[in-house]
Amino acid sequence: MADLCNKVEENPMENGDEKEGEGVSRDGSLHGFESLHRLLSASLKPEIFKEVSRLLVGLNCGRVLETVALPESAVTHSSKYDFDVQAFCFHADKELLRQPRVVRVGLIQNSIALPTTAPFLDQKRAIMQKLKPVIDAAGASGVNILCLQEAWMMPFAFCTREKRWCEFAEPIDGESTQFLQDLARKYNMVIVSPILERDVNHGETLWNTAVVIGNHGNIIGKHRKNHIPRVGDFNESTYYMEGNTGHPVFETAYGKIAINICYGRHHPLNWLAFGLNGAEIVFNPSATVGELSEPMWPIEARNAAIVNSYYVGSINRVGTEVFPNPFTSGDGKPQHADFGHFYGSSYFSAPDASCTPSLSRCRDGLLISDMDLNLCRQLKDKWGFRMTARYDMYAELLSKYVKAEFEPQVIIDPLLQKKAL
Amino acid sequence: MADLCNKVEENPMENGDEKEGEGVSRDGSLHGFESLHRLLSASLKPEIFKEVSRLLVGLNCGRVLETVALPESAVTHSSKYDFDVQAFCFHADKELLRQPRVVRVGLIQNSIALPTTAPFLDQKRAIMQKLKPVIDAAGASGVNILCLQEAWMMPFAFCTREKRWCEFAEPIDGESTQFLQDLARKYNMVIVSPILERDVNHGETLWNTAVVIGNHGNIIGKHRKNHIPRVGDFNESTYYMEGNTGHPVFETAYGKIAINICYGRHHPLNWLAFGLNGAEIVFNPSATVGELSEPMWPIEARNAAIVNSYYVGSINRVGTEVFPNPFTSGDGKPQHADFGHFYGSSYFSAPDASCTPSLSRCRDGLLISDMDLNLCRQLKDKWGFRMTARYDMYAELLSKYVKAEFEPQVIIDPLLQKKAL
Repeated sequence: MADLCNKVEENPMENGDEKEGEGVSRDGSLHGFESLHRLLSASLKPEIFKEVSRLLVGLNCGRVLETVALPESAVTHSSKYDFDVQAFCFHADKELLRQPRVVRVGLIQNSIALPTTAPFLDQKRAIMQKLKPVIDAAGASGVNILCLQEAWMMPFAFCTREKRWCEFAEPIDGESTQFLQDLARKYNMVIVSPILERDVNHGETLWNTAVVIGNHGNIIGKHRKNHIPRVGDFNESTYYMEGNTGHPVFETAYGKIAINICYGRHHPLNWLAFGLNGAEIVFNPSATVGELSEPMWPIEARNAAIVNSYYVGSINRVGTEVFPNPFTSGDGKPQHADFGHFYGSSYFSAPDASCTPSLSRCRDGLLISDMDLNLCRQLKDKWGFRMTARYDMYAELLSKYVKAEFEPQVIIDPLLQKKAL
Repeated sequence: MADLCNKVEENPMENGDEKEGEGVSRDGSLHGFESLHRLLSASLKPEIFKEVSRLLVGLNCGRVLETVALPESAVTHSSKYDFDVQAFCFHADKELLRQPRVVRVGLIQNSIALPTTAPFLDQKRAIMQKLKPVIDAAGASGVNILCLQEAWMMPFAFCTREKRWCEFAEPIDGESTQFLQDLARKYNMVIVSPILERDVNHGETLWNTAVVIGNHGNIIGKHRKNHIPRVGDFNESTYYMEGNTGHPVFETAYGKIAINICYGRHHPLNWLAFGLNGAEIVFNPSATVGELSEPMWPIEARNAAIVNSYYVGSINRVGTEVFPNPFTSGDGKPQHADFGHFYGSSYFSAPDASCTPSLSRCRDGLLISDMDLNLCRQLKDKWGFRMTARYDMYAELLSKYVKAEFEPQVIIDPLLQKKAL
């Protein structure tokens, strides 16, 4: 595993120009740069770092982001198995009529464990084996709700457009789910497991699906990815189409959660719908690469948390996955065998506009945060976004918009000399 | 004017503890801190600043944010009249079937010009007098479309809840509009003028309105603020209610523009609606203070630009406005006479997730950016957000949601031991 991670870091310096041009040489330009937060922390004077943090991490009113001490075994695990672990705490005001509802939530980001040329079953089981100590660390740390990354049980092979990767698909109650059910039971932990699903009851159809496993190891339900990208290497509709499960919120022992899978984070209505259905925490398990989306990554989830008054947990996988057969990417560039660098950087956002620092851009990691779910309603009461949202106006507008004969509301300057644009 | 600006800067150091507690002492803790970008630029080594900029300003693919040289007269004006001026450039790819559509867009942020105790007409005219050289600098710089801040012709007095400030309201074609119509004509410039409107045709009703003035000095139309806050000192519905003008897009000589006024930036559906109607640039003239919203400020507009594939110009006023009669803010704190510090920080966001650095947190300023409007459609084609948005699903959901009997889609863990939460 260390080999793979190193490979990602070394490649840019050695082979960058031949492989990916600006993208890779850019990644190599700051050797050892793990996260924006750590980079700034190491580079700025403390008083300046404090002010920068206030703006970047969104901490107002003189508050500081607290870290949480984890048990010795979790820390030992992280060092023995070479993954990053960080833990923080979001606070809410004390209320007079409700007790605090503090839950401990975890996210895991990881690279794959074996080369994509290895036998499929070996690949899948090696990822499980790799994840086991990370999940154990989460369990030992008392995590209540844990979410893994998108399609965690396989390489993100959809860029190849080769159908043989479909073999990784599993039914909802398949091997990957069973593996996590045991751990959920053991640690009394809710686990969200995003997999490539094979729907055997509907003619073997594939879906990109999150399975929600209850803290007793039971399967509570599933959610299928609502919005499917057709961008560059993300030709995912080669494999699966738009989900048919609506916007379910899962009421678990530890709170109401929902899952906005990957590309759905670019769709404000998807975020909104989970909010309307009452979500308190929305996970965004993703697989996305630097050149395409890194500047958007710190923006979209935080915005969703702010405007929908809920917590968001954003997860992105780590590393560069190299495939056996080269492929093109619809960008006129030569064929290549990898998708680019999955930049990790998983983080939590809170409804008060604060967020945690991100995990590493290149290492496996476990991010934990305590969050008082009371904060969601407190922010709703404070800002009144629901009350002032005028949903009736937008229901009407969208109903008109979806009709082919929709005409936009445009007021043309009568003095305008029409130009051919 | 310089006095007022200095007052804002000096107050925190001298009277902070008595006046506002954490908020003011916080503002004073980094003397001379004008903007995050400038702070980091001055504090980081160049190679680190470059990488930090890539993430913060959203520049991928090795691109750099270009500055634009302005004419001597604009620079002289900024120094003579003590306002900040900065100019940048957003690029788009060259197309084979369309010429570039580069427009030069400007934003102005400013503090008020006279104490709020001065006669109202003097206050208004002093602001006009103060803005004149800034608008002249925009005109001399060849700005095509200029937007002023929310209710620019008056102090943001709505926190007082005193009705006497209603006197500042003007009809659409009132003195403020006439002042700008002359300048629009002179500089062949579209000007967006957010004012407090008095609707004489509907019984003197007040609205928070943006008047769109065409480049020939003609009034193209108006838009009334759609979402009205009831947050802390922002009890704006004391003065005006939710707008009744829908989501108009104004087709001007230089592109299709719309205005999302202030609190509407917290409403993703408001941003969305302007996008559905075809906006290429959406302005967000605002008045907001540090303690309440500063961590959200760099997030919401950028998110809107990304997910709606248009440019956004965000404007916030500057300084602390002290009112004659103290008022309370519904937060249990003692009465006080000001609203807090309007932190300026106006900036542009582009649909490719990049943005300009912000103007100062404490000085008047003119921010200019060239933007090739072709970038909007290029990003639509690249990301396909419209194509993948499934608006029909959301039209249906919102239509159900607005009914009183709506029941959220919740899947309850059957093993859940119900706790009294």
